[in-house]
Amino acid sequence: MSSSQSWVPVSPTSHFSLANIPFGIISSKSDPTHRPAVAIGDHALDLKAFANAGGFDALPSIHKHISVFSSPTLNEFAALDRPVHRQVRAYLQSVLSDSTPHAGLLKDNADMRQAAILPFSEVRNHLPMAIGDYTDFYAGKNHAYNVGVLFRGPDNALQPNYVHLPVAYHGRASSVVVSGTPIRRPWGQILRDPKAEPKVPALAPCERLDIELELGMFVCRENNLGEPVPVDQAEEHIFGYVLMNDWSARDIQAWEYVPLGPFTSKNLGTSISPWVVLADALAGAKTAGLENKTELLPYLRESRKDNTLDIELEVEIITASGNKTTLSRTNSKNLLWSWPQMIAHHTITGCNLRPGDMFGSGTISGADPGTEGSILEQTKGGKQAVKLNGGEERKFLQDGDTVIIRGWSGQKGAIVGFGEVSGQIEAPLKLF
Amino acid sequence: MSSSQSWVPVSPTSHFSLANIPFGIISSKSDPTHRPAVAIGDHALDLKAFANAGGFDALPSIHKHISVFSSPTLNEFAALDRPVHRQVRAYLQSVLSDSTPHAGLLKDNADMRQAAILPFSEVRNHLPMAIGDYTDFYAGKNHAYNVGVLFRGPDNALQPNYVHLPVAYHGRASSVVVSGTPIRRPWGQILRDPKAEPKVPALAPCERLDIELELGMFVCRENNLGEPVPVDQAEEHIFGYVLMNDWSARDIQAWEYVPLGPFTSKNLGTSISPWVVLADALAGAKTAGLENKTELLPYLRESRKDNTLDIELEVEIITASGNKTTLSRTNSKNLLWSWPQMIAHHTITGCNLRPGDMFGSGTISGADPGTEGSILEQTKGGKQAVKLNGGEERKFLQDGDTVIIRGWSGQKGAIVGFGEVSGQIEAPLKLF
Repeated sequence: MSSSQSWVPVSPTSHFSLANIPFGIISSKSDPTHRPAVAIGDHALDLKAFANAGGFDALPSIHKHISVFSSPTLNEFAALDRPVHRQVRAYLQSVLSDSTPHAGLLKDNADMRQAAILPFSEVRNHLPMAIGDYTDFYAGKNHAYNVGVLFRGPDNALQPNYVHLPVAYHGRASSVVVSGTPIRRPWGQILRDPKAEPKVPALAPCERLDIELELGMFVCRENNLGEPVPVDQAEEHIFGYVLMNDWSARDIQAWEYVPLGPFTSKNLGTSISPWVVLADALAGAKTAGLENKTELLPYLRESRKDNTLDIELEVEIITASGNKTTLSRTNSKNLLWSWPQMIAHHTITGCNLRPGDMFGSGTISGADPGTEGSILEQTKGGKQAVKLNGGEERKFLQDGDTVIIRGWSGQKGAIVGFGEVSGQIEAPLKLF
Repeated sequence: MSSSQSWVPVSPTSHFSLANIPFGIISSKSDPTHRPAVAIGDHALDLKAFANAGGFDALPSIHKHISVFSSPTLNEFAALDRPVHRQVRAYLQSVLSDSTPHAGLLKDNADMRQAAILPFSEVRNHLPMAIGDYTDFYAGKNHAYNVGVLFRGPDNALQPNYVHLPVAYHGRASSVVVSGTPIRRPWGQILRDPKAEPKVPALAPCERLDIELELGMFVCRENNLGEPVPVDQAEEHIFGYVLMNDWSARDIQAWEYVPLGPFTSKNLGTSISPWVVLADALAGAKTAGLENKTELLPYLRESRKDNTLDIELEVEIITASGNKTTLSRTNSKNLLWSWPQMIAHHTITGCNLRPGDMFGSGTISGADPGTEGSILEQTKGGKQAVKLNGGEERKFLQDGDTVIIRGWSGQKGAIVGFGEVSGQIEAPLKLF
């Protein structure tokens, strides 16, 4: 489908070409109900309105599941499994194509277009999924090494387990928010002088607030508790992907994270982009990740070696005074572990995954300056300020800063992109 | 109410006296729908049947919320806030009391009794809440010290942060199961010889499968993202408590947990008791926890010093051959941090809690032999086998072992108890 065009106007640089068709949850002024939609160019196709007006009459296989398009989340649609996602996406591509055989449904039907095709300016995005559990991996090896050096020194930067298993921890699902949600600078416990004895923390607003550039992945297929997912079947459990910014309070993290891992330093908010790019839409973006020379245990050995994604990523900061600077450019293939390997490892002890569960890739950094996925890495732990346009500089985020992450694959006219995930830092509450 | 008796037969040693009235979710052969109930003696009062037959006609304040008693989880009831829980519990105590002013409703109404009072033998219990997020604290100081010695040696057993904040990590919500659910011995990565170089793990069924004796707490009141809950208001966010067994694969844990904490070693299953004992039912069981001589930061300073619970706990093991042994007897006051302190810390960076979220206390161990909350501690890391009745012994759990945890407070005739949480270990799958 990627060579054909849509009758809906789509700029050649749009992330939401006919080759994409990502799914999200919208509301609008005329209908505040949360409901599924797909994005095409600068418009949303309201799937509830489309379905209610008979838009899926020409796709009989979906008829018995038609209520999924009135659901306030994509969980029910995701749970229908990838063959159904594939049929629905192909059908919508056909309906939106300028050579559509279903012109009477939408293209040449002014009432239906009026009801179901909404400009983004009239649409509000919401969290696409009800997230049951959120697991944050640590598969960005360059990041893990860089941060390991800062937290534990170069000798212990990467633990011995790092090359044998995809390290991860359980994250906080409740504090995942959709792009555009403001992020309040948190208070927390901070040990300002780690060398002083006795160690006495202060209670203060975070002084080292940071981003983490990640990809997020949503699960569509459930496995039973006690039954691991084989790595070569894991791809069928993947619904799609989003961009993620896992906001991190570095000073709070450094004090709290031993021995059980990050906790309050990470549950202040995790932002995701609103449109879920389906796994099928990224079939052409598969590539090999970072090489792992370790002999892997059988449950992590994949038949395919291209289960990482080739997605261009960039991080932009906009300061309160309006200065815009691209902080970083990198690519999501900078991962040591593939998504199927993450699923296989997550379930090896029998953990049950459910539709709507979200995985974070871990922070994605390249190996070179200007490719870092966190400010901590870019400033060498806050020691070397990053110069911004307009003469400003940053060691960490300041109140009023907005961070925007963008990601895309494919060529002009057929870009499969994520749009963006953004968030602005608000001043801390006056607590004490 | 605790001195009065119920017209429903209640043994003096029952955990479910008229002073208790815990809430759960049941189904029955005649009605497979999951629905709320309360426990009294050896019976469940089906609140859906009771409500549908006008059982709450005499409690007008609940009328506009009556649909909560048809819900498949207790989340909606919990979200009504503690004053409503208090009214409903007091009303049900009054209905079930032998001196009830509402005798015509149930006590003297054979049809209603037949419809709504079900013997436990006809009832199946289900998870009481849809758990959004599960957070496992580490507030059992004796346990934290004992395990710290085994994992990191006595010098680093307790980290410097331990006395300044309630250490915790995000757990896995999907794998929380109700008492009675079998637990399959997991496969996982195990480093059998930690001293060998290079470190090469094996893939094998867990060889050091353990229990963790904990209390679980359910949240009822939501706070907004970005808005911490003050410690002296935190009690109002507590719905109630359950017993918890946080099954743990110690060999898998030791290899995976640095630097981000336990992951696959803990998401194989976490069992909870089915009846939620409301916070109000335990108002008489409040007591001080372990002394913390540290000067706490303001957000952790409580006006009341008795916000820990005085609950007697015991752990029994039943082997495949039927030998029964009490492994441990302890008390839930062996915590360094109170439940309101856990809430205040969890939210200090702004994390939003939601009704149905669950906290684990961390493993509860006393200071003396025979009071340990895990087998790891009791066997000094698997070195000294525990002698069981019938001539058996254990260093860790074997296939076929059943572990039962019981907990209660109060005196005979007015016991406020949890019943039990049990689980039997199944043999591992034949994976490779």
